[in-house]
Amino acid sequence: MNNSIINGILSKYESDNEKTLNNLSKLLNFGKLGGTGKLVILPVDQGFEHGPDRSFSMNPDSYDPHYHVSLAVEAGLSAFAAPIGMIEAGASTFKEKVPFILKCNSSNSFTNIKDQAITANIHDALRLNCIGVGFTIYPGSEFNLRLIKEACQLFHEAKKVGLICVLWSYARGSMSKKGETAINVISYASHLAALCGAHVIKVKLPTSYLEDDATKDVFISNNIKINTPTDRVKHIKKSCFNGRRIVVFSGGEAKNDEDLINEIKAIKDGGGNGSIIGRNTFQRSRDKALDLLNKIISIYKS
Amino acid sequence: MNNSIINGILSKYESDNEKTLNNLSKLLNFGKLGGTGKLVILPVDQGFEHGPDRSFSMNPDSYDPHYHVSLAVEAGLSAFAAPIGMIEAGASTFKEKVPFILKCNSSNSFTNIKDQAITANIHDALRLNCIGVGFTIYPGSEFNLRLIKEACQLFHEAKKVGLICVLWSYARGSMSKKGETAINVISYASHLAALCGAHVIKVKLPTSYLEDDATKDVFISNNIKINTPTDRVKHIKKSCFNGRRIVVFSGGEAKNDEDLINEIKAIKDGGGNGSIIGRNTFQRSRDKALDLLNKIISIYKS
Amino acid sequence: MNNSIINGILSKYESDNEKTLNNLSKLLNFGKLGGTGKLVILPVDQGFEHGPDRSFSMNPDSYDPHYHVSLAVEAGLSAFAAPIGMIEAGASTFKEKVPFILKCNSSNSFTNIKDQAITANIHDALRLNCIGVGFTIYPGSEFNLRLIKEACQLFHEAKKVGLICVLWSYARGSMSKKGETAINVISYASHLAALCGAHVIKVKLPTSYLEDDATKDVFISNNIKINTPTDRVKHIKKSCFNGRRIVVFSGGEAKNDEDLINEIKAIKDGGGNGSIIGRNTFQRSRDKALDLLNKIISIYKS
Amino acid sequence: MNNSIINGILSKYESDNEKTLNNLSKLLNFGKLGGTGKLVILPVDQGFEHGPDRSFSMNPDSYDPHYHVSLAVEAGLSAFAAPIGMIEAGASTFKEKVPFILKCNSSNSFTNIKDQAITANIHDALRLNCIGVGFTIYPGSEFNLRLIKEACQLFHEAKKVGLICVLWSYARGSMSKKGETAINVISYASHLAALCGAHVIKVKLPTSYLEDDATKDVFISNNIKINTPTDRVKHIKKSCFNGRRIVVFSGGEAKNDEDLINEIKAIKDGGGNGSIIGRNTFQRSRDKALDLLNKIISIYKS
Amino acid sequence: MNNSIINGILSKYESDNEKTLNNLSKLLNFGKLGGTGKLVILPVDQGFEHGPDRSFSMNPDSYDPHYHVSLAVEAGLSAFAAPIGMIEAGASTFKEKVPFILKCNSSNSFTNIKDQAITANIHDALRLNCIGVGFTIYPGSEFNLRLIKEACQLFHEAKKVGLICVLWSYARGSMSKKGETAINVISYASHLAALCGAHVIKVKLPTSYLEDDATKDVFISNNIKINTPTDRVKHIKKSCFNGRRIVVFSGGEAKNDEDLINEIKAIKDGGGNGSIIGRNTFQRSRDKALDLLNKIISIYKS
Repeated sequence: MNNSIINGILSKYESDNEKTLNNLSKLLNFGKLGGTGKLVILPVDQGFEHGPDRSFSMNPDSYDPHYHVSLAVEAGLSAFAAPIGMIEAGASTFKEKVPFILKCNSSNSFTNIKDQAITANIHDALRLNCIGVGFTIYPGSEFNLRLIKEACQLFHEAKKVGLICVLWSYARGSMSKKGETAINVISYASHLAALCGAHVIKVKLPTSYLEDDATKDVFISNNIKINTPTDRVKHIKKSCFNGRRIVVFSGGEAKNDEDLINEIKAIKDGGGNGSIIGRNTFQRSRDKALDLLNKIISIYKS
Repeated sequence: MNNSIINGILSKYESDNEKTLNNLSKLLNFGKLGGTGKLVILPVDQGFEHGPDRSFSMNPDSYDPHYHVSLAVEAGLSAFAAPIGMIEAGASTFKEKVPFILKCNSSNSFTNIKDQAITANIHDALRLNCIGVGFTIYPGSEFNLRLIKEACQLFHEAKKVGLICVLWSYARGSMSKKGETAINVISYASHLAALCGAHVIKVKLPTSYLEDDATKDVFISNNIKINTPTDRVKHIKKSCFNGRRIVVFSGGEAKNDEDLINEIKAIKDGGGNGSIIGRNTFQRSRDKALDLLNKIISIYKS
Repeated sequence: MNNSIINGILSKYESDNEKTLNNLSKLLNFGKLGGTGKLVILPVDQGFEHGPDRSFSMNPDSYDPHYHVSLAVEAGLSAFAAPIGMIEAGASTFKEKVPFILKCNSSNSFTNIKDQAITANIHDALRLNCIGVGFTIYPGSEFNLRLIKEACQLFHEAKKVGLICVLWSYARGSMSKKGETAINVISYASHLAALCGAHVIKVKLPTSYLEDDATKDVFISNNIKINTPTDRVKHIKKSCFNGRRIVVFSGGEAKNDEDLINEIKAIKDGGGNGSIIGRNTFQRSRDKALDLLNKIISIYKS
Repeated sequence: MNNSIINGILSKYESDNEKTLNNLSKLLNFGKLGGTGKLVILPVDQGFEHGPDRSFSMNPDSYDPHYHVSLAVEAGLSAFAAPIGMIEAGASTFKEKVPFILKCNSSNSFTNIKDQAITANIHDALRLNCIGVGFTIYPGSEFNLRLIKEACQLFHEAKKVGLICVLWSYARGSMSKKGETAINVISYASHLAALCGAHVIKVKLPTSYLEDDATKDVFISNNIKINTPTDRVKHIKKSCFNGRRIVVFSGGEAKNDEDLINEIKAIKDGGGNGSIIGRNTFQRSRDKALDLLNKIISIYKS
Repeated sequence: MNNSIINGILSKYESDNEKTLNNLSKLLNFGKLGGTGKLVILPVDQGFEHGPDRSFSMNPDSYDPHYHVSLAVEAGLSAFAAPIGMIEAGASTFKEKVPFILKCNSSNSFTNIKDQAITANIHDALRLNCIGVGFTIYPGSEFNLRLIKEACQLFHEAKKVGLICVLWSYARGSMSKKGETAINVISYASHLAALCGAHVIKVKLPTSYLEDDATKDVFISNNIKINTPTDRVKHIKKSCFNGRRIVVFSGGEAKNDEDLINEIKAIKDGGGNGSIIGRNTFQRSRDKALDLLNKIISIYKS
């Protein structure tokens, strides 16, 4: 069922068992981008992180978990990622209609502590027919090391039972606000994710800003190309084991379509594996969302 | 045994096993409100939280655990929820006479720390023939994330053995006192509970106050209707997966009957699933309590 | 073997298995007070809490663990409670000669932290032929909630294997020194113990003092009778599930015999289930101790 | 194989299983003091606590673990106690040549925190053919209670599999430096060890100093004899269950031979069970060490 | 297959099971230094500790994990050590081509906390066909004791399943920056590693500086020879159980080849077992790295 692109990607996962490779193959062969090596994943953990009203009130239909999953199905996306309650809410209706990724930790905005609570485990993921688990680490937070430890424990168990490991690596805490998306910071954050054994790495699309830390100088002295978004995507792929790992990008704050489309083109041109795109999907009408997702998919397919 | 209302509710719990659905069905079919989709639950954890004398001395018969359970039975309520010691005290006398929900964590007033101690587990719940477990989280507390983690761990185990998961989601700590019942705060708190995988969500009936936090603006800009108690109940149901989850409301501080009755009407009109009503039940004479509960049940039935 | 008094008490433990009820029955039928529903228990954890010299040097024979156990046997007491090392020291000599209760946590005076260390578990208790386990919580301490959690975990395991659960509930920390024995404080502390699922509750005999906290007002407004020691014992029994739980009292600091005897009379008249009496037993000569214990037993029997 | 002295000692361990009693018997019957009820144990955890150079550079041969074990063998000592790495280094060469006691926690001088790290467990002890495990607690440290808890957990497991439990009880933290060896402090510390269920208690030889704490007054008012080292050893034995537990003493800082010999005489005359003697053994030449150990053994045998 | 040198080394590991000795034998017999008792190990955890760009951008090929492993293979090194993600990335391509050591904890530079996160366990090591596990402790850090505890737990499990235990012992925290490589500090740190039960100890090559702590005086008074690098290597071997443990040295900061070669000679002359050499390998062109490694191997072989 796999073409050479997919086989090429799968061959980079040298240590995984058959079940995990099957799930990875399922992810890479699903939806309109199936077989292209590109992915568009719909994540809906926004309600956990920012509350339902900041996330959904501009498009009230989106208060319903089914809204999101059916959108992912209709748009032909690669996977749907969400916290346990939301996956449970569509578990039978959407069984086998779109691959599920169970987000296993989450934060909330009631406090501004840079930490996450574990809310699910691999047994939940198996029960809910998920193909993988997702986890967030905050490199730079005071909980940095504990989060990494938790991620690695989860991934250890996940690999045993054949689940894909997706790591959200979001720098936060010890750097400036602007530095959270600096190229040198995100390069390091993505490499950490690869070293933790993630199959799929999710980072924010980096800016050309260089955070003023110990990693800054080498960007200048070794002339690392970071001027264009395409350069930066290429660099992140390089930092993820020289392209051996799947990397998907999020765009962060909602923005206008043109900016977004340009980002997608850069991801594609830089060899990124696609997008995790939440707010820009559900914070507009269903029609507009489908339209946008179609455009994005077209770019990745082209 | 289920009518279409109950079947409709049960069908929303897409991931649960037969045992859990049976217990949920038992809850929804029990007592005078059986089959209506509405619930009135008697919780008696007041003695843990505020001490026996603040809770029971105005109605000395209520120092006896049997008083409460027999009241729940006589009034035809849907369930009785309490900490382990109190459930144990009536375990054989009231076996199968009213569904038990085992409250698995509790706080006390000896310190004002915003945290709870785990006092029971699913094995206790099974031993005591309970249909479910209850847990409290305090979004906004410094223990916010640990409590969420503990709730999700308990729920994971509970679902495996077929127990219903009831989550008390009480915002506390990072917001103003008034903000604890603000509509934007309770909307978020209830959504968290849904995302944690709770089957039944318990929050306080929200006021029209908007806590001044990052979620406030969207209520105004997106014109969310929150003027009347009915509007607010509707909104909370929306925040709980667009009505896919059972939500019951507590009234908080004891108040006069008229206010209380109006609250019940609003819960009903807003599509809420009922009430958890403690102090207003046992801090009056048995006759008056039965009378009040009858009135409440009548409203929900009407 | 049980008379109606004992059967009456046992019938209140509605959720316990046969093994636990057997052990409870053994406790209630043992020694000179067997069959009366009254208990006198000798606890020797004084050496842990205050050191051997403050505890034993006024009666040097009492440095020997056998001294205490043989005294309990000779005096015909209901049970002997002590930390693991002391129970082990008499485990074979006094096997079946007096019921053992294994005290499973202890503090010491080297630091003034209001916490306890877990020193034993149910497997130790079973190995040492104990009928039950004892545990201390400090409501009001900063470790309040963790101690409650630990007690409930121990009790959960103990009930499974048939061991009686005895809870020392000693308010400490958030209240005034005088408040530690205030009637409103001890009433709350004893109710917590009942809610934690203790079979036997141990509190200090309360004074008529009312600690100035949120529970004070109801004592006045609801006219709770607390003037005499007998009133207060009655009230504590009421707070322990309206008499459904066995409550034993300690006298605290050593005092003269007359005061002590008056306390015993009050406990009896108030419906208390007896005394846990340590220092007043071993900090005098053996003859005087036996004499005093005889008097106490006579009062309880009368 | 046991004579009446050994049988007398063993009979005090009333709760232990056959395996543990066999190991205790092995300890008491080994070496030149076999059958006397006296012990000389060589502990080499000095390198962990103070570093190899402060411990061994005055006698460079002692950098080698075999040096120590062979010395213990040649001198006919009762047992050799050390951290895991050192026991492993001689595990086959010295198998059955001297009983091993595995020291299961250790501190180091890189920080001055009054705590220890767990470095080994009962499975290590069994694998290394040890007869027992050793553990250190620091009564008075802020980690006081956690260390006691850890000791009791280890001992619980050790007794199940038949290992002897040796407890180093070293007061530290809340008292003055001088108070660490005060008779009232060490009396309490040794009693704690007995209550924790230790088979063998190790404390420092106490001075006549009385630390100014709550235990001081009774020494004066109850006229406890503490003037001579012999008096103090007698008192410590009394505090350890009136002689029911084996107590060995360490001398602390290296001193001249005459002082040391006098200490040994006092331990013997006071009924102490022997010495744990480290630095005074290996911080001199092998010949001198053997000579000193011979003298010590002669005193204990006389 | 073992010659007398290797048999001599293996015979020092007196407590290990056959599997562990086989893996140790495999390590000592692998590559160009096989059979010499010397080792050169390539560690690539630099990207975790300092980020990919500070580690790899001066030699962009080295962003690829395969680059490193194939270099180790081509250079005929003894083993390749790296965090889980990097080992996984070459698990099948390089299976049996070079022994793998799984680094099981790592730190990162996002915070300057002196601690490490556990990222892998023995089950990962077995799955990835590793011959051993690596772990870092920071003697002197506030997490000193917890890291030691974690190392010993890992090693306990590793020895059971036959994995070699490699301990990185890096003093950090309580000493001056210069003191981190002081001979008295590293001597103590290496001895700690031996006492923790490590099979292979990795420390930095010490300087002649003496950190001003309690271990300093004995270096002077006992005339410990530390003037030359060779002296210091000899002393470290002495501190590691008088040569009974394998000790490998890292050079720390990248330096010119001459300095490095002189260090290697000193390690050899002092009886050290070889080098762990990371940055000096991959932060130059492949040709130059191979050339340097050849020179190093030649020295060790000579």
